[in-house]
Amino acid sequence: MSAKLLEGKKGIIFGALNSDSIAWKVAEKANHHGAEFVLTNAPIAMRMGEIDRLAQETGSEVIPADATKEEDLKNLLEKATGKFGKLDFILHSIGMSVNVRKGKAYTDLNYDWSQKGWDVSALSFHKVMQTAWKMDAMNKWGSIVALTYMAAQRTFPDYNDMADNKAYLESIARSFGYHWGVRNKVRVNTISQSPTMTTAGSGVKGFDGFMSFAEKMSPLGNASADECANYTITLFSDLTRKVTMQNLFHDGGFSNMGVSDMVMAQYTNNVQEE
Amino acid sequence: MSAKLLEGKKGIIFGALNSDSIAWKVAEKANHHGAEFVLTNAPIAMRMGEIDRLAQETGSEVIPADATKEEDLKNLLEKATGKFGKLDFILHSIGMSVNVRKGKAYTDLNYDWSQKGWDVSALSFHKVMQTAWKMDAMNKWGSIVALTYMAAQRTFPDYNDMADNKAYLESIARSFGYHWGVRNKVRVNTISQSPTMTTAGSGVKGFDGFMSFAEKMSPLGNASADECANYTITLFSDLTRKVTMQNLFHDGGFSNMGVSDMVMAQYTNNVQEE
Amino acid sequence: MSAKLLEGKKGIIFGALNSDSIAWKVAEKANHHGAEFVLTNAPIAMRMGEIDRLAQETGSEVIPADATKEEDLKNLLEKATGKFGKLDFILHSIGMSVNVRKGKAYTDLNYDWSQKGWDVSALSFHKVMQTAWKMDAMNKWGSIVALTYMAAQRTFPDYNDMADNKAYLESIARSFGYHWGVRNKVRVNTISQSPTMTTAGSGVKGFDGFMSFAEKMSPLGNASADECANYTITLFSDLTRKVTMQNLFHDGGFSNMGVSDMVMAQYTNNVQEE
Amino acid sequence: MSAKLLEGKKGIIFGALNSDSIAWKVAEKANHHGAEFVLTNAPIAMRMGEIDRLAQETGSEVIPADATKEEDLKNLLEKATGKFGKLDFILHSIGMSVNVRKGKAYTDLNYDWSQKGWDVSALSFHKVMQTAWKMDAMNKWGSIVALTYMAAQRTFPDYNDMADNKAYLESIARSFGYHWGVRNKVRVNTISQSPTMTTAGSGVKGFDGFMSFAEKMSPLGNASADECANYTITLFSDLTRKVTMQNLFHDGGFSNMGVSDMVMAQYTNNVQEE
Repeated sequence: MSAKLLEGKKGIIFGALNSDSIAWKVAEKANHHGAEFVLTNAPIAMRMGEIDRLAQETGSEVIPADATKEEDLKNLLEKATGKFGKLDFILHSIGMSVNVRKGKAYTDLNYDWSQKGWDVSALSFHKVMQTAWKMDAMNKWGSIVALTYMAAQRTFPDYNDMADNKAYLESIARSFGYHWGVRNKVRVNTISQSPTMTTAGSGVKGFDGFMSFAEKMSPLGNASADECANYTITLFSDLTRKVTMQNLFHDGGFSNMGVSDMVMAQYTNNVQEE
Repeated sequence: MSAKLLEGKKGIIFGALNSDSIAWKVAEKANHHGAEFVLTNAPIAMRMGEIDRLAQETGSEVIPADATKEEDLKNLLEKATGKFGKLDFILHSIGMSVNVRKGKAYTDLNYDWSQKGWDVSALSFHKVMQTAWKMDAMNKWGSIVALTYMAAQRTFPDYNDMADNKAYLESIARSFGYHWGVRNKVRVNTISQSPTMTTAGSGVKGFDGFMSFAEKMSPLGNASADECANYTITLFSDLTRKVTMQNLFHDGGFSNMGVSDMVMAQYTNNVQEE
Repeated sequence: MSAKLLEGKKGIIFGALNSDSIAWKVAEKANHHGAEFVLTNAPIAMRMGEIDRLAQETGSEVIPADATKEEDLKNLLEKATGKFGKLDFILHSIGMSVNVRKGKAYTDLNYDWSQKGWDVSALSFHKVMQTAWKMDAMNKWGSIVALTYMAAQRTFPDYNDMADNKAYLESIARSFGYHWGVRNKVRVNTISQSPTMTTAGSGVKGFDGFMSFAEKMSPLGNASADECANYTITLFSDLTRKVTMQNLFHDGGFSNMGVSDMVMAQYTNNVQEE
Repeated sequence: MSAKLLEGKKGIIFGALNSDSIAWKVAEKANHHGAEFVLTNAPIAMRMGEIDRLAQETGSEVIPADATKEEDLKNLLEKATGKFGKLDFILHSIGMSVNVRKGKAYTDLNYDWSQKGWDVSALSFHKVMQTAWKMDAMNKWGSIVALTYMAAQRTFPDYNDMADNKAYLESIARSFGYHWGVRNKVRVNTISQSPTMTTAGSGVKGFDGFMSFAEKMSPLGNASADECANYTITLFSDLTRKVTMQNLFHDGGFSNMGVSDMVMAQYTNNVQEE
């Protein structure tokens, strides 16, 4: 494709861990669309070193930052704006629940872990934006996107306390989106993506079975990380300037399904056999 | 139960066909809670004569009315207000799709039938309210309720064009609810009920399998017609005076589920067996 | 901009009346993005002859069709597919309420006019899709978009029965979107656009005052017809393939506002002066 | 009213600070409806001593508990169940933002204060339920309710980080509601109440002006604390057994309004005078 939607645009991409990551795909697509950006991730997540490969591939600099630490974010934003001037886009693709990792049930949460997960998965989005806000780091008509999941609206038991974190994250997009819009004409949205076989996704119990269920429930099938990256590019482009404070489902239609014929066929078949 | 929530209240109940009907249960409960009311249904629906049994049981008069005909509704409202004075509640429990009955697919609709179904299932609710509005027939703090289904928000393929009719119906509740609120302090709401094994429900293809699916998806199980009637009583009572223009899910939790463990167990089990 | 997002794509655009129309802007943008298309409108709407100017500008053919008439749509689709082969996109930008035009209050509707408005504004979308469905006229990964307004979710009294029509329209997008997705990998979405000063919009009572209110309520201000056209292009492009059955707000943030500081300042100022 | 909807039911009521509190009104109404309950509040909130008056009036015991402390909640639940056996209802009416209190803007949050507010206003609801869950303290068909505000869905700038807290709170209701439903047939809902002139509400900047705006936007006017208490009683009663995981708007219709004629009149009047 010759169309370059992000020519001249500069940004920061959080959360590219490895080539399964949605953020990784976004970096590749943004690069193809002519954007320049800084890659960042938590120091601990970068030890594996894969992000350097992406940096090389896209001609990007890597600046480590723990998105829960205001001083790290300040350093990151200073370096990025020092390099680029004001920014046009930011991608927040960060999420982690200690309770999920440690196998704690939602009815038996460890609240220290809940707080850690909330800080990493939700509050970090506010911290990123507040840091950028105070430095007046965004260009007019800039675009900020965070990735989320429909568990914020409906219950998927295995998603555990990440559901509540995502609800908080989506609320931040609306709350901060208001201020960004009024002061800087900057928009803030979340993309509510299909279940995706990333490193994060695969940590959720019973994820394979659920991927199959979602595939059959969605009229277009599940959306892939690659497709999600394409969609993200449209939200960074100048073609979507008046879309803000929205939670946008990119899920093959799952979110507005009651039940599909394929799921009912599978389900009923089993009922009859019992 | 000794609690009488509708003492002294008068109303009209549309749509009691037989003892499976939600409207039938509402009439019985309203009677127990001290209300007086007129029963009505389309002349054609009344030929079976069962409604007379309900009338006798509840000490009510039956006044036939085709809810798509303004003159029938005018006659009904005149007789009801002649008997009771102004009214405190109206229940609209009417729905029918010719396309569903005749087995037409959603991708092969007969549009004359679509229009008939829209008129019966959706526009009739406007006609009932407009007739009452013009006669100023509702008491202050009166309550108007229509029954609906979640297909208005999410797709259940077998529900066919009734989904669109219910979306229109729910919109009428909001649109007309505004005017009733401002002029008369009257509230208008819809109850979005679980799939229910009424005469209407059982006409939908694959309804049994779907009832089972919904039962296992809903943390509390499906809501019964009897339970729906209880809920309706609260909406007619003085305890819910400031609830208006809402679509209220009475469905054991289905509407806010992504997927339940029971559904996944059933679904995955079958996948593994294939 | 050199990016061409619709290179090689073919489609049909309904509803370009004059250069204020959103459909007109979409045609211009689609042309710039490399698409080819047929323009269509109701014969009565075409008498003014302005559409010929657009046809000339974009190198398009005009094929008149009353979108409420199945035979007209069949003729249109046959000619369009005869010319192009299967289609990649359709835009439905059609709406009209006789009750609004004639100044009837929502509490005093003429139901013949309600039906006419419903047929033109809502059911026509089904008719367009059913005609295309039966002819298997859409390419895999095609995109169908209809324009709508937030009155489908929330009450704006002057919008009258168009609110209910838009609710029905949006439901059709979900209902038919399911079938298109499963059979053809085609997506169907609605764009819920800011109030826009088109010929249709300007017919609504008190529209100027409301435009100002919406402008101050929306953090980014109202979205223009031109911006809406840009957004529509993204939905026709291959970058949004897994977005379906969604109602997408393109409104500067209005839809997720409770109240803005600017509206409160205006409102409170006036309260204090009284 | 002679109707007693809660005869024989036992519960716990959090958050009755003074006679303006919604929880205070709920306690009075619950008492009139035949319920018995324990009153609780944070030790610091109880210093003013007013709660003792409510305890006397309703024949209730007061058991102090900081709802952010698991050991306090364990003590409370043990005492309450020791006295009553299993419980039928719990009301969570707790909310506080340090950032709001200290006048910090949403774009300049102190994150220690954010965390404190999140813990008090949102996570406390999980802690209450997890404590009761582990002790298996709820009767079958019990009902748990938390109070919330529409800022969880739409932006009211002065509501600040309480918007995000309420989004998290409402998500907890869905997430935990699933588990309670499946294991115990217990339901969990939130009531999204009109702005209310409680001690908490009056701490929000510009609250008076906003109360007036909301009053004119809502077709039935704002819902009072007293009316909210009535509505809460219906949710504790056996008449709403199948309503769960819902966020229920009790707001005179505000939530589904785009704009009212009264607000537009006020707004436009001022625009014209400028």
